[in-house]
Amino acid sequence: MLSDPLESNPGKYNHAEIISIGDELLIGQVVNTNASWLAEQLFLSGFMVKRIVAIPDEEQAIFKALDDAVVQAGVVVITGGLGPTADDITKPALCRYFGTDLVFSQLAFEQISELFVRRGWAMNDRNRMQAMLPEACMPLKNSSGTAPGMWFVKDKSIVVSLPGVPFEMQDIFTNELAPRLKQLHTGEVLLYKTILTTGVGESVIADRLSAWESLLPQSFKLAYLPQPGLVRLRLTANGSDAPQLEAELERLKLELVSLLSDIVFGYDGDTVEGVVGQKLAALSKTLSTAESCTGGTIAAMITSVPGSSAYFKGSVVAYANETKGKLLGVDEVLIRKYGSVSREVVEVMASQARALMHTDYAIATSGIAGPDGATPGKPVGTVWIALAGPKGIVTEHYLFGEHRGRNIRRASLAALNLLRKSLDTELISDSES
Amino acid sequence: MLSDPLESNPGKYNHAEIISIGDELLIGQVVNTNASWLAEQLFLSGFMVKRIVAIPDEEQAIFKALDDAVVQAGVVVITGGLGPTADDITKPALCRYFGTDLVFSQLAFEQISELFVRRGWAMNDRNRMQAMLPEACMPLKNSSGTAPGMWFVKDKSIVVSLPGVPFEMQDIFTNELAPRLKQLHTGEVLLYKTILTTGVGESVIADRLSAWESLLPQSFKLAYLPQPGLVRLRLTANGSDAPQLEAELERLKLELVSLLSDIVFGYDGDTVEGVVGQKLAALSKTLSTAESCTGGTIAAMITSVPGSSAYFKGSVVAYANETKGKLLGVDEVLIRKYGSVSREVVEVMASQARALMHTDYAIATSGIAGPDGATPGKPVGTVWIALAGPKGIVTEHYLFGEHRGRNIRRASLAALNLLRKSLDTELISDSES
Repeated sequence: MLSDPLESNPGKYNHAEIISIGDELLIGQVVNTNASWLAEQLFLSGFMVKRIVAIPDEEQAIFKALDDAVVQAGVVVITGGLGPTADDITKPALCRYFGTDLVFSQLAFEQISELFVRRGWAMNDRNRMQAMLPEACMPLKNSSGTAPGMWFVKDKSIVVSLPGVPFEMQDIFTNELAPRLKQLHTGEVLLYKTILTTGVGESVIADRLSAWESLLPQSFKLAYLPQPGLVRLRLTANGSDAPQLEAELERLKLELVSLLSDIVFGYDGDTVEGVVGQKLAALSKTLSTAESCTGGTIAAMITSVPGSSAYFKGSVVAYANETKGKLLGVDEVLIRKYGSVSREVVEVMASQARALMHTDYAIATSGIAGPDGATPGKPVGTVWIALAGPKGIVTEHYLFGEHRGRNIRRASLAALNLLRKSLDTELISDSES
Repeated sequence: MLSDPLESNPGKYNHAEIISIGDELLIGQVVNTNASWLAEQLFLSGFMVKRIVAIPDEEQAIFKALDDAVVQAGVVVITGGLGPTADDITKPALCRYFGTDLVFSQLAFEQISELFVRRGWAMNDRNRMQAMLPEACMPLKNSSGTAPGMWFVKDKSIVVSLPGVPFEMQDIFTNELAPRLKQLHTGEVLLYKTILTTGVGESVIADRLSAWESLLPQSFKLAYLPQPGLVRLRLTANGSDAPQLEAELERLKLELVSLLSDIVFGYDGDTVEGVVGQKLAALSKTLSTAESCTGGTIAAMITSVPGSSAYFKGSVVAYANETKGKLLGVDEVLIRKYGSVSREVVEVMASQARALMHTDYAIATSGIAGPDGATPGKPVGTVWIALAGPKGIVTEHYLFGEHRGRNIRRASLAALNLLRKSLDTELISDSES
């Protein structure tokens, strides 16, 4: 038996552990992104993750991981193995571990039925089985799928089991678990603000911030979180006086933003496409795109934002030169003279899209995403971007890298960032007039 | 002290464990891609990874993880914490764990110097320090960086420490570790095949396979790995006779595929867009799209595939009704009569895109991605898809869920899958004619 966890580890209540269950993790077929998402969320809820362990779909491995975890951590989050199929063994294993039986949960059944009714689906026996839950657990509602989360208590630790499907796991964590964890947490507060930048790399930002960063108070930390095409900067504060900490954090955030005003596009969960959408909506302006190398990615990003139909009218993805002529009226002679990857062609694409779709702004891209298509003087990664607006056309030229997917992503972000900067000028001149 | 590992776990010699060291993993700042890469490589070298554990840069955590690992596994691979900076504590911790001292390794020093000479860099004291290694270890050459790998033996287990920088870790594993592991390995092999499906959920597939699955030989396992819009099925085989196992696995795979022929689109790392691209290229056919609710996502998926310009001519993303009229020639009266989310409108969109861009096939989508836009009889998630081809138009109607992003993703996959099925018929009738 385990000794009293309070005696063996008095600090455990602000510690967490993550147990990821699934054979697919152990043969490298799946990267454990669930664990990093959960680790960040637990950290931001005030719990320091002390261990992440990935184990196979085997009962003994689950028991051993749980025995270890409840000694060290006040909160243990398990993911995986809760689906309706035969290889999912987490639920029976948890029953045996907690010495309880599977019983029909009317509450869980109603929550699952609600999802089926909402989607107009018929329930089968397997779906109904999902409402069979260990008697000792409190079910946590899953609004995105049929496997409820389960909340247990053992040796003064909370053990929560979540499904492995990322959006279901995230749904339950965000709506059911995070609010409960915040109530549990006592002691130190941890506050943070995330500032989002695009356009330059991590090391350039670090150079620009080095003098400022060296003067940060001890309880404040700055982390660089790079992703393709953007860098997130997270400023964290640690202490006991929340209001004072919050005020100081806000002051430091504003200092940081003023040092990076040309590359900061938003905060926390913002996206460039979301920020651009808000600005277009605020100005009652409309947008269209004419895309060659980005192949519809800019349109897809813009339309991923709910409500984008208010300002986005459409796009012509002119992948073939023939389509550039036929749908955008780009002169064949122009393409022959300058090539389709040129300032001249991308400017015509932008102004034609703007005219054809009657929009205030139009973005156009043309470039060589790779791996093929390079010509002398135009290596893979060459991209031209044009923005046509009420005041004329702005053009930018980039040379990105060799990786097709990242070139498309970076060109799309650069195009949206060009529009963002232009809309900022509009917003400033509007408020000044 | 640990008991004799051979007595407590006689199977341990074909088992492996991975220990990932680094605070950044535990706050979710970094996704542990090293672990999945290593897991796959160890698996392919004949070692089944039984556990992956991520722990902080703390000596006690490293000791505990090692104690656990050497009992269970014949091979333990540690990554991280070997860099030249102050927070890297793995090397001194390993010295204490193995009861040995740091000594200057002439061999390691020469290997590090070689790298500096090759790159034309000057060595500093930090770099020289990297040649100080635990006396009990055999150094493993790092051709890509300054931190050598280290090979220890404890309780008949091999413990290898590798740097956390991915390309350095991969370099040492591939050139130094994998050849030694292959010599060590004896006994069982593990083989797998992954079958990719789209169109129906995990539980429907499980129903269709239940009779077949119940007759699977004991050494074969089937796992369901769902992702938004698709389900991967992994069939694993375990045994000693590799050629026989491979033949049996292939036979079972073909049986499974024949049971699910309408929904299987590919294998292993395939994507629907990649498979569709291969088929179009094989048939020398071309494609265009006319997208409303998918907002350019289908075009972006298709153009994510290298070489797609050979068969993809372009897309009209007709987000506004006005754009449907102006660019695709959809009659305003038709939209007023049936609504833009209707069989009638989506069919015209497809046939107009096909005619305008002179392609063999055209896909069109129109639907309500949400969260707004529902009308009586047309809830959020309603999607119409049309495929226009040489033999006419096929239309499909779907009712997906409530989540905007997933509706867009599922509609895009469904549209590409409709095209895939149609191209399969072409390929079959071509080979028959």
